[in-house]
Amino acid sequence: MASDSVNELSIRLRDFARARDWEQFHSPKNLAMALAGEAGELLEHFQWLTEAQSYELSEAKRDEVALELADILIYVLRCAERLGVDVMDAAWRKVEINERRYPAHRVRGDARRASEYDIESDGE
Amino acid sequence: MASDSVNELSIRLRDFARARDWEQFHSPKNLAMALAGEAGELLEHFQWLTEAQSYELSEAKRDEVALELADILIYVLRCAERLGVDVMDAAWRKVEINERRYPAHRVRGDARRASEYDIESDGE
Amino acid sequence: MASDSVNELSIRLRDFARARDWEQFHSPKNLAMALAGEAGELLEHFQWLTEAQSYELSEAKRDEVALELADILIYVLRCAERLGVDVMDAAWRKVEINERRYPAHRVRGDARRASEYDIESDGE
Amino acid sequence: MASDSVNELSIRLRDFARARDWEQFHSPKNLAMALAGEAGELLEHFQWLTEAQSYELSEAKRDEVALELADILIYVLRCAERLGVDVMDAAWRKVEINERRYPAHRVRGDARRASEYDIESDGE
Repeated sequence: MASDSVNELSIRLRDFARARDWEQFHSPKNLAMALAGEAGELLEHFQWLTEAQSYELSEAKRDEVALELADILIYVLRCAERLGVDVMDAAWRKVEINERRYPAHRVRGDARRASEYDIESDGE
Repeated sequence: MASDSVNELSIRLRDFARARDWEQFHSPKNLAMALAGEAGELLEHFQWLTEAQSYELSEAKRDEVALELADILIYVLRCAERLGVDVMDAAWRKVEINERRYPAHRVRGDARRASEYDIESDGE
Repeated sequence: MASDSVNELSIRLRDFARARDWEQFHSPKNLAMALAGEAGELLEHFQWLTEAQSYELSEAKRDEVALELADILIYVLRCAERLGVDVMDAAWRKVEINERRYPAHRVRGDARRASEYDIESDGE
Repeated sequence: MASDSVNELSIRLRDFARARDWEQFHSPKNLAMALAGEAGELLEHFQWLTEAQSYELSEAKRDEVALELADILIYVLRCAERLGVDVMDAAWRKVEINERRYPAHRVRGDARRASEYDIESDGE
Protein backbone atom coordinates (compact mmCIF):
# COMPACT_ATOMS: atom_id res chain seq x y z
CA MET A 1 0.00 0.00 0.00
CA ALA A 2 1.22 3.49 -0.83
CA SER A 3 2.43 5.60 2.07
CA ASP A 4 0.06 8.44 2.94
CA SER A 5 2.87 10.52 4.44
CA VAL A 6 3.29 13.83 2.70
CA ASN A 7 6.85 14.13 3.97
CA GLU A 8 7.94 10.87 2.35
CA LEU A 9 6.44 11.83 -0.98
CA SER A 10 7.95 15.30 -0.79
CA ILE A 11 11.46 13.92 -0.21
CA ARG A 12 11.12 11.51 -3.14
CA LEU A 13 10.01 14.38 -5.39
CA ARG A 14 12.95 16.52 -4.31
CA ASP A 15 15.38 13.69 -5.02
CA PHE A 16 13.76 13.15 -8.44
CA ALA A 17 14.35 16.82 -9.34
CA ARG A 18 17.89 16.83 -8.02
CA ALA A 19 18.89 13.70 -9.91
CA ARG A 20 17.83 15.44 -13.15
CA ASP A 21 19.34 18.83 -12.29
CA TRP A 22 15.82 20.23 -12.58
CA GLU A 23 15.89 22.34 -9.42
CA GLN A 24 17.11 25.19 -11.61
CA PHE A 25 13.66 25.20 -13.29
CA HIS A 26 11.74 24.69 -10.05
CA SER A 27 11.44 28.25 -8.85
CA PRO A 28 8.29 28.93 -6.82
CA LYS A 29 7.06 31.07 -9.73
CA ASN A 30 7.49 28.29 -12.27
CA LEU A 31 6.00 25.65 -9.99
CA ALA A 32 2.95 27.83 -9.39
CA MET A 33 2.49 28.03 -13.17
CA ALA A 34 2.90 24.28 -13.60
CA LEU A 35 0.40 23.67 -10.81
CA ALA A 36 -2.16 25.98 -12.41
CA GLY A 37 -1.57 24.33 -15.78
CA GLU A 38 -2.44 20.96 -14.25
CA ALA A 39 -5.51 22.51 -12.60
CA GLY A 40 -6.56 23.55 -16.11
CA GLU A 41 -6.24 19.96 -17.29
CA LEU A 42 -8.41 18.83 -14.39
CA LEU A 43 -11.11 21.31 -15.44
CA GLU A 44 -11.13 19.94 -18.96
CA HIS A 45 -12.36 16.58 -17.69
CA PHE A 46 -15.42 18.18 -16.14
CA GLN A 47 -16.28 21.24 -18.21
CA TRP A 48 -19.07 19.76 -20.32
CA LEU A 49 -20.40 17.35 -17.69
CA THR A 50 -23.32 18.07 -15.42
CA GLU A 51 -22.60 17.90 -11.71
CA ALA A 52 -24.43 14.56 -11.58
CA GLN A 53 -22.29 13.18 -14.42
CA SER A 54 -19.14 14.35 -12.64
CA TYR A 55 -19.79 11.71 -9.95
CA GLU A 56 -20.23 8.92 -12.46
CA LEU A 57 -17.02 8.74 -14.42
CA SER A 58 -16.01 5.53 -16.13
CA GLU A 59 -13.21 3.59 -14.43
CA ALA A 60 -10.72 4.73 -17.07
CA LYS A 61 -11.75 8.38 -16.71
CA ARG A 62 -11.70 8.17 -12.93
CA ASP A 63 -8.10 6.99 -13.08
CA GLU A 64 -7.12 9.78 -15.47
CA VAL A 65 -8.62 12.27 -13.02
CA ALA A 66 -6.79 10.60 -10.11
CA LEU A 67 -3.52 11.13 -11.99
CA GLU A 68 -4.38 14.79 -12.67
CA LEU A 69 -5.07 15.29 -8.97
CA ALA A 70 -1.74 13.58 -8.28
CA ASP A 71 0.05 16.00 -10.62
CA ILE A 72 -1.47 18.92 -8.73
CA LEU A 73 -0.53 17.40 -5.36
CA ILE A 74 3.01 16.88 -6.64
CA TYR A 75 3.37 20.55 -7.59
CA VAL A 76 1.84 21.67 -4.27
CA LEU A 77 4.54 19.70 -2.46
CA ARG A 78 7.34 20.87 -4.77
CA CYS A 79 6.31 24.51 -4.39
CA ALA A 80 6.10 24.17 -0.60
CA GLU A 81 9.51 22.47 -0.48
CA ARG A 82 11.16 25.18 -2.59
CA LEU A 83 9.65 27.90 -0.40
CA GLY A 84 10.53 26.08 2.81
CA VAL A 85 6.94 26.07 4.08
CA ASP A 86 5.06 23.21 5.74
CA VAL A 87 1.88 22.78 3.72
CA MET A 88 0.34 20.18 6.04
CA ASP A 89 0.78 22.52 8.98
CA ALA A 90 -0.86 25.27 6.91
CA ALA A 91 -3.70 22.94 5.93
CA TRP A 92 -4.46 22.04 9.54
CA ARG A 93 -4.36 25.73 10.44
CA LYS A 94 -6.72 26.45 7.54
CA VAL A 95 -9.14 23.82 8.79
CA GLU A 96 -9.21 25.58 12.15
CA ILE A 97 -9.68 28.98 10.50
CA ASN A 98 -12.59 27.62 8.46
CA GLU A 99 -14.18 25.98 11.50
CA ARG A 100 -14.22 29.37 13.21
CA ARG A 101 -15.23 31.32 10.09
CA TYR A 102 -18.12 29.04 9.15
CA PRO A 103 -19.82 27.84 12.35
CA ALA A 104 -21.88 24.78 11.46
CA HIS A 105 -25.10 26.12 13.03
CA ARG A 106 -24.89 29.33 11.00
CA VAL A 107 -23.99 28.14 7.51
CA ARG A 108 -25.70 24.77 7.27
CA GLY A 109 -26.69 24.10 3.67
CA ASP A 110 -25.53 27.51 2.45
CA ALA A 111 -22.39 27.84 0.32
CA ARG A 112 -21.97 31.59 0.14
CA ARG A 113 -18.50 32.89 0.77
CA ALA A 114 -17.34 34.23 4.09
CA SER A 115 -17.12 37.74 2.69
CA GLU A 116 -20.83 37.64 1.88
CA TYR A 117 -21.64 36.57 5.42
CA ASP A 118 -19.52 39.42 6.66
CA ILE A 119 -21.41 41.88 4.48
CA GLU A 120 -24.62 40.62 5.99
CA SER A 121 -23.38 40.79 9.54
CA ASP A 122 -22.59 44.47 8.93
CA GLY A 123 -26.31 45.01 8.83
CA GLU A 124 -27.12 43.15 12.00
CA MET B 1 3.22 19.05 15.34
CA ALA B 2 0.66 18.70 12.58
CA SER B 3 0.05 15.20 11.27
CA ASP B 4 1.46 14.64 7.80
CA SER B 5 -1.07 11.88 7.08
CA VAL B 6 -3.23 12.67 4.08
CA ASN B 7 -5.88 10.24 5.28
CA GLU B 8 -6.34 12.01 8.60
CA LEU B 9 -6.68 15.39 6.94
CA SER B 10 -9.08 14.01 4.34
CA ILE B 11 -11.37 12.57 7.02
CA ARG B 12 -11.41 15.85 8.94
CA LEU B 13 -12.31 17.72 5.75
CA ARG B 14 -15.13 15.30 4.98
CA ASP B 15 -16.52 15.69 8.49
CA PHE B 16 -16.30 19.48 8.16
CA ALA B 17 -18.39 19.38 4.97
CA ARG B 18 -20.93 16.95 6.41
CA ALA B 19 -21.45 18.99 9.57
CA ARG B 20 -22.39 21.96 7.38
CA ASP B 21 -24.49 19.98 4.88
CA TRP B 22 -22.07 21.18 2.22
CA GLU B 23 -21.60 17.84 0.48
CA GLN B 24 -24.47 18.86 -1.81
CA PHE B 25 -22.16 21.58 -3.23
CA HIS B 26 -19.08 19.36 -3.32
CA SER B 27 -19.57 17.64 -6.66
CA PRO B 28 -16.30 16.72 -8.39
CA LYS B 29 -17.10 19.37 -11.01
CA ASN B 30 -17.52 22.12 -8.42
CA LEU B 31 -14.47 21.06 -6.44
CA ALA B 32 -12.35 21.10 -9.61
CA MET B 33 -13.51 24.69 -10.18
CA ALA B 34 -12.76 25.70 -6.60
CA LEU B 35 -9.32 24.10 -6.84
CA ALA B 36 -8.53 25.97 -10.07
CA GLY B 37 -9.79 29.21 -8.52
CA GLU B 38 -7.31 28.77 -5.67
CA ALA B 39 -4.55 27.98 -8.19
CA GLY B 40 -5.37 31.34 -9.77
CA GLU B 41 -4.89 33.05 -6.40
CA LEU B 42 -1.52 31.35 -6.05
CA LEU B 43 -0.45 32.73 -9.44
CA GLU B 44 -1.35 36.26 -8.39
CA HIS B 45 1.34 36.17 -5.70
CA PHE B 46 4.04 35.46 -8.27
CA GLN B 47 2.93 37.04 -11.54
CA TRP B 48 5.01 40.23 -11.38
CA LEU B 49 7.98 38.75 -9.53
CA THR B 50 11.12 37.50 -11.20
CA GLU B 51 11.99 33.88 -10.56
CA ALA B 52 14.74 35.05 -8.19
CA GLN B 53 12.27 37.21 -6.25
CA SER B 54 9.87 34.28 -6.00
CA TYR B 55 12.35 32.56 -3.67
CA GLU B 56 12.69 35.57 -1.42
CA LEU B 57 9.23 36.32 -0.13
CA SER B 58 8.79 38.21 3.11
CA GLU B 59 7.71 36.08 6.07
CA ALA B 60 4.16 37.45 5.83
CA LYS B 61 3.95 36.72 2.09
CA ARG B 62 5.46 33.26 2.54
CA ASP B 63 2.71 32.43 5.02
CA GLU B 64 -0.01 33.73 2.69
CA VAL B 65 1.39 31.48 -0.03
CA ALA B 66 1.52 28.53 2.39
CA LEU B 67 -2.19 29.04 3.07
CA GLU B 68 -2.95 29.22 -0.69
CA LEU B 69 -1.09 25.94 -1.18
CA ALA B 70 -3.09 24.53 1.73
CA ASP B 71 -6.35 25.58 0.06
CA ILE B 72 -5.30 23.77 -3.09
CA LEU B 73 -4.29 20.67 -1.15
CA ILE B 74 -7.65 20.74 0.64
CA TYR B 75 -9.56 20.77 -2.65
CA VAL B 76 -7.33 18.01 -4.08
CA LEU B 77 -8.28 15.83 -1.11
CA ARG B 78 -11.96 16.77 -1.23
CA CYS B 79 -12.17 16.03 -4.95
CA ALA B 80 -10.40 12.68 -4.51
CA GLU B 81 -12.68 11.77 -1.62
CA ARG B 82 -15.84 12.60 -3.59
CA LEU B 83 -14.64 10.54 -6.55
CA GLY B 84 -13.52 7.66 -4.35
CA VAL B 85 -9.95 7.71 -5.66
CA ASP B 86 -6.72 7.40 -3.66
CA VAL B 87 -4.65 10.42 -4.63
CA MET B 88 -1.55 9.34 -2.69
CA ASP B 89 -1.55 6.02 -4.50
CA ALA B 90 -1.91 7.91 -7.79
CA ALA B 91 0.95 10.24 -6.81
CA TRP B 92 3.31 7.35 -6.07
CA ARG B 93 2.33 5.75 -9.37
CA LYS B 94 2.95 9.07 -11.12
CA VAL B 95 6.42 9.28 -9.58
CA GLU B 96 7.19 5.86 -11.04
CA ILE B 97 5.79 6.85 -14.44
CA ASN B 98 7.94 9.98 -14.44
CA GLU B 99 11.05 8.05 -13.39
CA ARG B 100 10.59 5.81 -16.45
CA ARG B 101 9.57 8.64 -18.78
CA TYR B 102 12.45 10.94 -17.89
CA PRO B 103 15.55 8.83 -17.29
CA ALA B 104 18.02 10.95 -15.35
CA HIS B 105 20.91 10.33 -17.76
CA ARG B 106 18.86 11.46 -20.72
CA VAL B 107 17.13 14.60 -19.48
CA ARG B 108 19.66 16.06 -17.04
CA GLY B 109 19.33 19.86 -17.04
CA ASP B 110 16.70 19.89 -19.77
CA ALA B 111 13.09 20.75 -18.97
CA ARG B 112 11.34 20.01 -22.24
CA ARG B 113 8.19 17.99 -22.00
CA ALA B 114 8.04 14.27 -22.61
CA SER B 115 6.05 14.79 -25.80
CA GLU B 116 8.90 16.80 -27.23
CA TYR B 117 11.35 14.02 -26.43
CA ASP B 118 8.98 11.60 -28.08
CA ILE B 119 8.76 13.74 -31.19
CA GLU B 120 12.51 13.68 -31.37
CA SER B 121 12.77 9.97 -30.87
CA ASP B 122 10.41 9.49 -33.85
CA GLY B 123 13.17 10.84 -35.99
CA GLU B 124 15.88 8.59 -34.62
CA MET C 1 -20.88 53.58 -27.39
CA ALA C 2 -17.64 51.73 -26.80
CA SER C 3 -15.62 50.79 -29.87
CA ASP C 4 -15.70 47.06 -30.60
CA SER C 5 -12.37 47.22 -32.44
CA VAL C 6 -9.77 45.01 -30.85
CA ASN C 7 -6.98 47.01 -32.45
CA GLU C 8 -8.09 50.28 -30.84
CA LEU C 9 -8.30 48.68 -27.41
CA SER C 10 -4.95 46.98 -27.86
CA ILE C 11 -3.22 50.26 -28.71
CA ARG C 12 -4.75 51.98 -25.70
CA LEU C 13 -3.55 49.17 -23.44
CA ARG C 14 -0.05 49.36 -24.87
CA ASP C 15 0.05 53.12 -24.30
CA PHE C 16 -1.21 52.62 -20.72
CA ALA C 17 1.67 50.22 -20.00
CA ARG C 18 4.28 52.42 -21.64
CA ALA C 19 3.20 55.55 -19.76
CA ARG C 20 3.80 53.64 -16.49
CA ASP C 21 7.04 51.97 -17.60
CA TRP C 22 5.28 48.65 -17.02
CA GLU C 23 6.39 46.96 -20.22
CA GLN C 24 9.37 45.61 -18.24
CA PHE C 25 6.87 43.49 -16.25
CA HIS C 26 4.79 42.53 -19.29
CA SER C 27 6.75 39.55 -20.57
CA PRO C 28 4.58 36.95 -22.32
CA LYS C 29 5.28 34.61 -19.39
CA ASN C 30 4.06 37.11 -16.79
CA LEU C 31 1.02 38.11 -18.85
CA ALA C 32 0.03 34.45 -19.25
CA MET C 33 0.16 34.14 -15.45
CA ALA C 34 -1.88 37.29 -14.93
CA LEU C 35 -4.44 36.07 -17.46
CA ALA C 36 -4.77 32.70 -15.71
CA GLY C 37 -5.06 34.46 -12.36
CA GLU C 38 -8.04 36.43 -13.70
CA ALA C 39 -9.53 33.23 -15.10
CA GLY C 40 -9.34 31.86 -11.56
CA GLU C 41 -11.30 34.87 -10.28
CA LEU C 42 -13.93 34.24 -12.94
CA LEU C 43 -14.31 30.64 -11.73
CA GLU C 44 -14.88 31.80 -8.16
CA HIS C 45 -18.08 33.54 -9.22
CA PHE C 46 -19.54 30.30 -10.53
CA GLN C 47 -18.05 27.48 -8.49
CA TRP C 48 -20.94 26.90 -6.06
CA LEU C 49 -23.73 27.82 -8.50
CA THR C 50 -25.70 25.32 -10.52
CA GLU C 51 -25.60 25.78 -14.26
CA ALA C 52 -29.13 27.16 -14.11
CA GLN C 53 -28.14 29.69 -11.45
CA SER C 54 -25.14 30.75 -13.54
CA TYR C 55 -27.56 32.27 -16.07
CA GLU C 56 -29.47 34.21 -13.45
CA LEU C 57 -26.95 36.47 -11.80
CA SER C 58 -28.07 39.63 -10.06
CA GLU C 59 -27.35 42.85 -11.93
CA ALA C 60 -24.47 43.64 -9.57
CA LYS C 61 -22.94 40.18 -9.97
CA ARG C 62 -23.38 40.27 -13.73
CA ASP C 63 -21.39 43.47 -13.86
CA GLU C 64 -18.64 42.04 -11.68
CA VAL C 65 -18.41 39.10 -14.06
CA ALA C 66 -18.35 41.45 -17.06
CA LEU C 67 -15.36 43.20 -15.51
CA GLU C 68 -13.60 39.86 -14.87
CA LEU C 69 -14.13 38.93 -18.52
CA ALA C 70 -12.76 42.35 -19.45
CA ASP C 71 -9.63 41.70 -17.37
CA ILE C 72 -9.09 38.45 -19.20
CA LEU C 73 -9.65 40.09 -22.59
CA ILE C 74 -7.17 42.80 -21.63
CA TYR C 75 -4.47 40.24 -20.84
CA VAL C 76 -5.22 38.30 -24.03
CA LEU C 77 -4.58 41.48 -26.01
CA ARG C 78 -1.49 42.45 -24.01
CA CYS C 79 0.03 39.00 -24.41
CA ALA C 80 -0.69 38.98 -28.15
CA GLU C 81 0.79 42.45 -28.53
CA ARG C 82 3.99 41.52 -26.67
CA LEU C 83 4.40 38.40 -28.81
CA GLY C 84 3.60 40.24 -32.02
CA VAL C 85 0.73 37.91 -32.95
CA ASP C 86 -2.69 38.84 -34.35
CA VAL C 87 -5.20 37.20 -32.03
CA MET C 88 -8.25 38.14 -34.10
CA ASP C 89 -6.70 36.53 -37.14
CA ALA C 90 -5.97 33.44 -35.03
CA ALA C 91 -9.55 33.44 -33.71
CA TRP C 92 -11.04 33.53 -37.21
CA ARG C 93 -8.67 30.72 -38.24
CA LYS C 94 -9.74 28.77 -35.16
CA VAL C 95 -13.40 29.18 -36.10
CA GLU C 96 -12.60 27.67 -39.49
CA ILE C 97 -10.63 24.81 -37.93
CA ASN C 98 -13.54 24.06 -35.58
CA GLU C 99 -16.07 24.20 -38.39
CA ARG C 100 -14.07 21.50 -40.21
CA ARG C 101 -13.31 19.47 -37.08
CA TYR C 102 -16.88 19.39 -35.79
CA PRO C 103 -19.23 19.11 -38.79
CA ALA C 104 -22.68 20.14 -37.60
CA HIS C 105 -24.40 17.01 -38.91
CA ARG C 106 -22.00 14.76 -37.01
CA VAL C 107 -21.76 16.37 -33.58
CA ARG C 108 -25.20 17.87 -33.08
CA GLY C 109 -26.07 17.87 -29.39
CA ASP C 110 -22.88 16.04 -28.41
CA ALA C 111 -20.11 17.87 -26.59
CA ARG C 112 -17.35 15.29 -26.54
CA ARG C 113 -13.94 16.53 -27.53
CA ALA C 114 -12.49 16.16 -30.99
CA SER C 115 -9.91 13.68 -29.74
CA GLU C 116 -12.69 11.38 -28.63
CA TYR C 117 -14.32 11.55 -32.04
CA ASP C 118 -10.95 10.80 -33.59
CA ILE C 119 -10.51 7.76 -31.37
CA GLU C 120 -13.89 6.54 -32.52
CA SER C 121 -13.21 7.14 -36.16
CA ASP C 122 -10.08 5.00 -35.85
CA GLY C 123 -12.42 2.10 -35.35
CA GLU C 124 -14.64 2.79 -38.34
CA MET D 1 -7.59 40.54 -43.60
CA ALA D 2 -9.51 39.27 -40.59
CA SER D 3 -12.11 41.60 -39.14
CA ASP D 4 -11.10 43.05 -35.78
CA SER D 5 -14.73 43.56 -34.75
CA VAL D 6 -15.60 41.67 -31.60
CA ASN D 7 -19.27 41.79 -32.45
CA GLU D 8 -18.79 40.03 -35.79
CA LEU D 9 -16.74 37.27 -34.20
CA SER D 10 -19.21 36.89 -31.37
CA ILE D 11 -22.13 36.42 -33.76
CA ARG D 12 -20.22 33.82 -35.78
CA LEU D 13 -19.42 31.92 -32.58
CA ARG D 14 -23.04 31.99 -31.48
CA ASP D 15 -24.18 30.68 -34.84
CA PHE D 16 -21.55 27.93 -34.66
CA ALA D 17 -22.91 26.77 -31.30
CA ARG D 18 -26.54 26.96 -32.41
CA ALA D 19 -25.92 24.94 -35.58
CA ARG D 20 -24.53 22.13 -33.40
CA ASP D 21 -27.18 22.38 -30.68
CA TRP D 22 -24.31 23.12 -28.28
CA GLU D 23 -25.95 26.04 -26.48
CA GLN D 24 -27.29 23.50 -23.98
CA PHE D 25 -23.64 22.95 -22.87
CA HIS D 26 -22.73 26.63 -22.98
CA SER D 27 -23.90 27.75 -19.56
CA PRO D 28 -21.85 30.61 -18.11
CA LYS D 29 -20.52 28.15 -15.52
CA ASN D 30 -19.31 25.68 -18.13
CA LEU D 31 -17.85 28.38 -20.36
CA ALA D 32 -15.92 29.82 -17.39
CA MET D 33 -14.44 26.35 -16.84
CA ALA D 34 -13.56 25.93 -20.50
CA LEU D 35 -11.94 29.37 -20.52
CA ALA D 36 -9.85 28.54 -17.45
CA GLY D 37 -8.87 25.21 -18.98
CA GLU D 38 -7.51 27.04 -22.04
CA ALA D 39 -5.70 29.49 -19.75
CA GLY D 40 -4.01 26.45 -18.22
CA GLU D 41 -2.86 25.32 -21.67
CA LEU D 42 -1.42 28.78 -22.27
CA LEU D 43 0.59 28.52 -19.04
CA GLU D 44 2.08 25.20 -20.12
CA HIS D 45 3.82 26.91 -23.03
CA PHE D 46 5.65 29.26 -20.70
CA GLN D 47 6.13 27.44 -17.40
CA TRP D 48 9.74 26.33 -17.85
CA LEU D 49 10.88 29.31 -19.92
CA THR D 50 12.63 32.33 -18.50
CA GLU D 51 10.91 35.65 -19.11
CA ALA D 52 13.53 36.43 -21.75
CA GLN D 53 12.86 33.13 -23.53
CA SER D 54 9.13 33.84 -23.46
CA TYR D 55 9.71 36.67 -25.95
CA GLU D 56 11.71 34.50 -28.31
CA LEU D 57 9.44 31.68 -29.32
CA SER D 58 10.00 29.83 -32.56
CA GLU D 59 7.55 30.68 -35.34
CA ALA D 60 5.74 27.36 -34.81
CA LYS D 61 5.45 27.90 -31.06
CA ARG D 62 4.34 31.49 -31.52
CA ASP D 63 1.50 30.30 -33.72
CA GLU D 64 0.47 27.64 -31.19
CA VAL D 65 0.34 30.35 -28.54
CA ALA D 66 -1.67 32.63 -30.86
CA LEU D 67 -4.22 29.83 -31.21
CA GLU D 68 -4.35 29.33 -27.42
CA LEU D 69 -4.99 33.04 -26.98
CA ALA D 70 -7.68 32.75 -29.64
CA ASP D 71 -9.35 29.91 -27.72
CA ILE D 72 -9.41 32.07 -24.61
CA LEU D 73 -10.81 35.04 -26.55
CA ILE D 74 -13.48 32.78 -28.02
CA TYR D 75 -14.62 31.64 -24.57
CA VAL D 76 -14.56 35.22 -23.26
CA LEU D 77 -16.97 36.18 -26.05
CA ARG D 78 -19.16 33.11 -25.62
CA CYS D 79 -19.45 33.66 -21.88
CA ALA D 80 -20.27 37.35 -22.37
CA GLU D 81 -22.88 36.50 -25.00
CA ARG D 82 -24.57 33.90 -22.79
CA LEU D 83 -24.70 36.35 -19.89
CA GLY D 84 -25.88 39.21 -22.08
CA VAL D 85 -23.01 41.49 -21.11
CA ASP D 86 -20.94 43.74 -23.38
CA VAL D 87 -17.33 42.79 -22.71
CA MET D 88 -15.85 45.54 -24.89
CA ASP D 89 -17.81 48.14 -22.98
CA ALA D 90 -16.56 46.58 -19.74
CA ALA D 91 -12.97 46.57 -21.05
CA TRP D 92 -13.10 50.27 -21.92
CA ARG D 93 -14.58 51.00 -18.49
CA LYS D 94 -11.81 48.92 -16.92
CA VAL D 95 -9.17 50.94 -18.78
CA GLU D 96 -10.65 54.08 -17.30
CA ILE D 97 -10.77 52.57 -13.81
CA ASN D 98 -7.12 51.54 -14.11
CA GLU D 99 -6.10 54.95 -15.39
CA ARG D 100 -7.58 56.50 -12.24
CA ARG D 101 -6.33 53.77 -9.90
CA TYR D 102 -2.74 53.81 -11.14
CA PRO D 103 -1.80 57.41 -11.97
CA ALA D 104 1.27 57.29 -14.21
CA HIS D 105 3.29 59.71 -12.09
CA ARG D 106 2.76 57.64 -8.96
CA VAL D 107 3.32 54.08 -10.12
CA ARG D 108 5.97 54.46 -12.81
CA GLY D 109 8.13 51.34 -12.91
CA ASP D 110 6.40 49.73 -9.94
CA ALA D 111 4.10 46.73 -10.42
CA ARG D 112 2.61 46.31 -6.98
CA ARG D 113 -1.11 45.85 -6.85
CA ALA D 114 -3.54 48.63 -6.15
CA SER D 115 -4.44 47.14 -2.78
CA GLU D 116 -0.82 47.50 -1.70
CA TYR D 117 -0.81 51.15 -2.71
CA ASP D 118 -4.01 51.61 -0.79
CA ILE D 119 -2.48 50.06 2.33
CA GLU D 120 0.35 52.52 2.03
CA SER D 121 -1.89 55.50 1.52
CA ASP D 122 -3.68 54.60 4.77
CA GLY D 123 -0.49 55.58 6.50
CA GLU D 124 -0.06 58.93 4.78
